[in-house]
Amino acid sequence: MTRFAVAGAKGRMGQAVIRVLTERGFDIAATFDKGDDIDLTNADAVIDFTTPNATLAIAEACAAAGGKVHVIGSTGFMPEQETALNAYQDRNIIIRSGNFSLGVNILMGLVKQAAAKLDALDWDIEVTEAHHKRKVDAPSGTALMLGHAAADGRGVSLHNAKVAARDGLTGQREPGTIGFSVIRGGGIVGEHSVLFAAEDELITLSHSARDRTLFARGAVEAALYGVKQSPGLYDMQDVLGFN
Amino acid sequence: MTRFAVAGAKGRMGQAVIRVLTERGFDIAATFDKGDDIDLTNADAVIDFTTPNATLAIAEACAAAGGKVHVIGSTGFMPEQETALNAYQDRNIIIRSGNFSLGVNILMGLVKQAAAKLDALDWDIEVTEAHHKRKVDAPSGTALMLGHAAADGRGVSLHNAKVAARDGLTGQREPGTIGFSVIRGGGIVGEHSVLFAAEDELITLSHSARDRTLFARGAVEAALYGVKQSPGLYDMQDVLGFN
Amino acid sequence: MTRFAVAGAKGRMGQAVIRVLTERGFDIAATFDKGDDIDLTNADAVIDFTTPNATLAIAEACAAAGGKVHVIGSTGFMPEQETALNAYQDRNIIIRSGNFSLGVNILMGLVKQAAAKLDALDWDIEVTEAHHKRKVDAPSGTALMLGHAAADGRGVSLHNAKVAARDGLTGQREPGTIGFSVIRGGGIVGEHSVLFAAEDELITLSHSARDRTLFARGAVEAALYGVKQSPGLYDMQDVLGFN
Amino acid sequence: MTRFAVAGAKGRMGQAVIRVLTERGFDIAATFDKGDDIDLTNADAVIDFTTPNATLAIAEACAAAGGKVHVIGSTGFMPEQETALNAYQDRNIIIRSGNFSLGVNILMGLVKQAAAKLDALDWDIEVTEAHHKRKVDAPSGTALMLGHAAADGRGVSLHNAKVAARDGLTGQREPGTIGFSVIRGGGIVGEHSVLFAAEDELITLSHSARDRTLFARGAVEAALYGVKQSPGLYDMQDVLGFN
Repeated sequence: MTRFAVAGAKGRMGQAVIRVLTERGFDIAATFDKGDDIDLTNADAVIDFTTPNATLAIAEACAAAGGKVHVIGSTGFMPEQETALNAYQDRNIIIRSGNFSLGVNILMGLVKQAAAKLDALDWDIEVTEAHHKRKVDAPSGTALMLGHAAADGRGVSLHNAKVAARDGLTGQREPGTIGFSVIRGGGIVGEHSVLFAAEDELITLSHSARDRTLFARGAVEAALYGVKQSPGLYDMQDVLGFN
Repeated sequence: MTRFAVAGAKGRMGQAVIRVLTERGFDIAATFDKGDDIDLTNADAVIDFTTPNATLAIAEACAAAGGKVHVIGSTGFMPEQETALNAYQDRNIIIRSGNFSLGVNILMGLVKQAAAKLDALDWDIEVTEAHHKRKVDAPSGTALMLGHAAADGRGVSLHNAKVAARDGLTGQREPGTIGFSVIRGGGIVGEHSVLFAAEDELITLSHSARDRTLFARGAVEAALYGVKQSPGLYDMQDVLGFN
Repeated sequence: MTRFAVAGAKGRMGQAVIRVLTERGFDIAATFDKGDDIDLTNADAVIDFTTPNATLAIAEACAAAGGKVHVIGSTGFMPEQETALNAYQDRNIIIRSGNFSLGVNILMGLVKQAAAKLDALDWDIEVTEAHHKRKVDAPSGTALMLGHAAADGRGVSLHNAKVAARDGLTGQREPGTIGFSVIRGGGIVGEHSVLFAAEDELITLSHSARDRTLFARGAVEAALYGVKQSPGLYDMQDVLGFN
Repeated sequence: MTRFAVAGAKGRMGQAVIRVLTERGFDIAATFDKGDDIDLTNADAVIDFTTPNATLAIAEACAAAGGKVHVIGSTGFMPEQETALNAYQDRNIIIRSGNFSLGVNILMGLVKQAAAKLDALDWDIEVTEAHHKRKVDAPSGTALMLGHAAADGRGVSLHNAKVAARDGLTGQREPGTIGFSVIRGGGIVGEHSVLFAAEDELITLSHSARDRTLFARGAVEAALYGVKQSPGLYDMQDVLGFN
């Protein structure tokens, strides 16, 4: 049976991971937080929702322990940190994602396909998201992931296609663009929709999250997938068999 | 039976008004467009979806003909044009609105009440709207009307409370603000929602328009209300008995 | 400061009530469960999400203690139990509701008004609800409350207007009816919508609940309202000032 | 250039087909209605939104004229009529669908895939639809098509999995079932959603139709696909390359 370590064990996501592992009866071989030694001797996989610097230290510890499954939900990596992390993929089984919910990752695959099949001249793509009032950035990382999936489906770059935040005299919508809109309020955990709008019809593909433990559950699934893989870089699309 | 004149008779809204009047068997005493003489001798009410300048000329013709019902859907008045138009309210029965659909006007009343009852510290208000790809401005006039209704309910000014178009590092949402978000795509006729988001619950009040003739229908209802009133300035809230 | 008693203290709703009272720093003077003595000497108000029989015993204890605020969320009363309970309203301040969320109760008031203003020949009313897969009855009590609010607004009886569960050759929709539709799945806490559908436009008034503690919060608000009232029968519409 | 015949040319869908063909500059070689002779000499393809009996007569005329593209939107075939129609597939290029909108057919493919990937023990599937008050049957043919797509994805039969129209004491939801719910009101052209509901998240895949001409447009696309095929039986999934 897979033995787990939990990084950032006192954090909100770390607590959720421990809760899910306990519910499912898994062995928690180690937990650690900022300042603790990272001992992965007895663990097969570490679940890590921390920060880029902590994640790099954990990657080094995984490699030093002979290569481990490293499930990473930390975000905000600078390009040089990305490079440093990627250097561990010949020793560790790295699984990274901006969103570990199974639902969002299923949705990404569907969005990519729909975008590939629907002509950009006839179908306008819009990504909308809603989150709680405490969220400090917009659009959400998941909204951007969905936008990338749509852009990939069309064979374009989101960087070029993205239109954020319309206000004032915007002029007519440009064909081929991908628009984003953002709602903030109350305790909304996370709502995402991708609209495909034609002259006489609309397709909407949406995801609604009710509780954060679902992200912990997805990370555990990722680790269980990881223990069966060779070293390398994976994401939730691999875990779900979309790639 | 009320006798109608239609301004801007060749325009998209003028055509819709003529269609509705014909369907309902009303007498169309006059139609006119840019450049035509405005003869209101045989009309009780004129329905006017034109431009500020045309509307001012029609207001003058209404007054010269002894005072008529003047239903105005034209938008984009400058402050001095507003003043000029308001000067006719002692002779004409003026009914103005940014949106003549019965549904949107019902919604405005409900939004104002909900905003008055829901504490701004606990409930965040967000207005969202979606329109077709040809619309050149954002947010829509109707979204702003709904925002004003919410602000009125709270006893604040929308000018101060409005937050448009979140993008990037926005920081946490400020209590008491009213956020706007905008979707553009395909042939969407008009979708509007007002969200009231608390920590554990959401109220959403929405309107969806399927066809532009509904705005023509509302303008005709306004005129039928107007013929029973004294000179003055009215809006659709008066027509519907919300005021 | 109001002193509280909590009935059914070990139940899911009782636990949520205790959590809310503790968070807000209120004095919990007594808690009791099935089989316990009901001692209300030191309490001003009792919050009671139990069963009809338990509720009747609590009502008697409230009266015996000289009249207390009795907030009742229990459901499933038979007519004779209703009669027995109502007999306490000359001694107790009884506040009953099928749903203590502030949002749903705000929505009821809005639904009633909209139904009163929108002509039944032009506007069809449909109530939809979604709940988790463990719910055993349909439509939900809250959906029926919303249906009653709509029927009240129209001055008709829901008993006569209600159409549940369309399947097969239904024939055209009858004007004036109020339709219900039901979704069951996963862990959905509670979604309710009332649609008003005309030929070319739709108004939708909806409520979404994310977490059960919101019902506990509403019950506490009801009790705080109750301590300022005379004996009698009240509901959440009174608490919120809609009546 | 493909030459078209239009069956049921005076009907609502026939008129929409003629409008689309005219807009796109296609040659309309023949139109016919009930009682007219069916002359397909100069046509490559016939678009047929009529009734089962008329459709069988048209199939015979297609075959007699040497084999034509026969695009069929008629519904309500009895089993023996199905058999009779299928007998023409060795001479005609038959393209049949319950819904010719590109969007709904894209959605079917996405629904099937999502259903295949999401474990029936964790994810409950619900199909909801809304149509105008004049619709006489429920659920819509399109809702059933979407239900079939979901059942196919799971490798089960919709006949066994379908749960229609919950009302009263339903008991808990059975895992693996596919529920249907139905809304009727006003002039709603057609709304369809497939929900996948798990304990902490929801995926919703929806389609909204604004105007019936979109079904005519899809039928014309089907005919243009058909002229390049050999005799046989096809559906919109073939036209769109999903099969």
